[in-house]
Amino acid sequence: MRYEEYTIEGRNAVLEAFRSGKTIDKLYILDGCQDGPVRTIVREAKKQGSLFQFVTKERLDQMSTTGKHQGVIAHAAAYEYAEIEDMFALAEQKGEAPFFILLDEIEDPHNLGAIIRTANLAGAHGVIIPKRRAVGLTATVAKTSAGALNYTPVAKVTNLAKTIEELKERGLWFVCADMNGDVMYQTNLTGPIGLVIGNEGNGVSRLVKEKCDFITSIPMKGDIDSLNASVAAGVLAYEIVRQRMMTK
Amino acid sequence: MRYEEYTIEGRNAVLEAFRSGKTIDKLYILDGCQDGPVRTIVREAKKQGSLFQFVTKERLDQMSTTGKHQGVIAHAAAYEYAEIEDMFALAEQKGEAPFFILLDEIEDPHNLGAIIRTANLAGAHGVIIPKRRAVGLTATVAKTSAGALNYTPVAKVTNLAKTIEELKERGLWFVCADMNGDVMYQTNLTGPIGLVIGNEGNGVSRLVKEKCDFITSIPMKGDIDSLNASVAAGVLAYEIVRQRMMTK
Repeated sequence: MRYEEYTIEGRNAVLEAFRSGKTIDKLYILDGCQDGPVRTIVREAKKQGSLFQFVTKERLDQMSTTGKHQGVIAHAAAYEYAEIEDMFALAEQKGEAPFFILLDEIEDPHNLGAIIRTANLAGAHGVIIPKRRAVGLTATVAKTSAGALNYTPVAKVTNLAKTIEELKERGLWFVCADMNGDVMYQTNLTGPIGLVIGNEGNGVSRLVKEKCDFITSIPMKGDIDSLNASVAAGVLAYEIVRQRMMTK
Repeated sequence: MRYEEYTIEGRNAVLEAFRSGKTIDKLYILDGCQDGPVRTIVREAKKQGSLFQFVTKERLDQMSTTGKHQGVIAHAAAYEYAEIEDMFALAEQKGEAPFFILLDEIEDPHNLGAIIRTANLAGAHGVIIPKRRAVGLTATVAKTSAGALNYTPVAKVTNLAKTIEELKERGLWFVCADMNGDVMYQTNLTGPIGLVIGNEGNGVSRLVKEKCDFITSIPMKGDIDSLNASVAAGVLAYEIVRQRMMTK
């Protein structure tokens, strides 16, 4: 996977990056800054769905490499994304039914990295993430993936629900996890499959859930609500591995 | 679980904390500082197995609440640990065979928090961690556990290998994961069990591995070496859940 480090500092440079269609993963803005250019940047960030955070001047000074951040530092997608066709090619090359993992607005880079790592080891052929309201392929993601990003294709799509529809036409079945679903051990997860993992706080969005063919559940025997998103992805991915091994 | 925030600043206060036997989870020391008291503190930290890190003056100033850190800030265990007896009591109360998760030197607080969260939802009756060379119950761990720390007992022991021996006499079987073990689907994981999870980088230590009754493996179908420690813990814990559900 091709990689380039990308930090953008200064108001004009960040605005220009938005205008030229660059994918900004995360934005740090000086707390209390309310002038025109900064408001425009915040508006663009909201429009593109970039994560942004208001921080102190000390924090920005510490992060800055040029010393001229003017109250704004942006981190841009530095890795090249794959195409969904690359995932189909990988499945075909291995002689396996396609197994894709789709992430519905995962925000934490450590979770994204851990899930790419899991995808690689569970034998998934790729990971699909949405363009908006989700973390992209940052340096932290690459590090947390423990090298898996070099092997497992990651594609970015505009509309996850629409992608699911298109992939259904190519023979995939979609499953997502929800407390009200059938226990995963009783759901048939063999065959060409797309596993959908929801957001850390809110789970799978209604629109995406409606597109899924199956809703399955991880047995919950405790007192709290939900597993960590990357742990849930691991448990579900390995139930697919188990069922695929059993039917061979 | 009772909780108290605990940050100790200044050379004498930190030295006194070590001397009185307080468990220091993490130590931040001014980079380049080499005088007598600081050397003593580093020696104590090594002896107790506390994690420590050399940082800039700016970083320490930012962390300091008293403004008088003198180059040393310590974070101390702020949660009250449980006893292993509490875990046996919980298992008995639920009418279940004991299921404990033992962590062999987990260093990342996010991993520890996620594993306590998993332990709660997979129905484990407690988590056992070693006193040395491991992260303790810090505020980050509590936060990442998503409330599970209030329900799932966590005990701290001096010698994990010795604890395993004692628990074996009380009827527990011990299993750890290693690439060379039998595939987990073919290992009998029902009955009173202790699941051992290894360190993020080095896996399960030789001494602890020798005490285990079974070595099992998670199927690895990819290009990289290992899963994230908390994901591996989740996958293994849920294989235990599955086997227990099947034999009911």
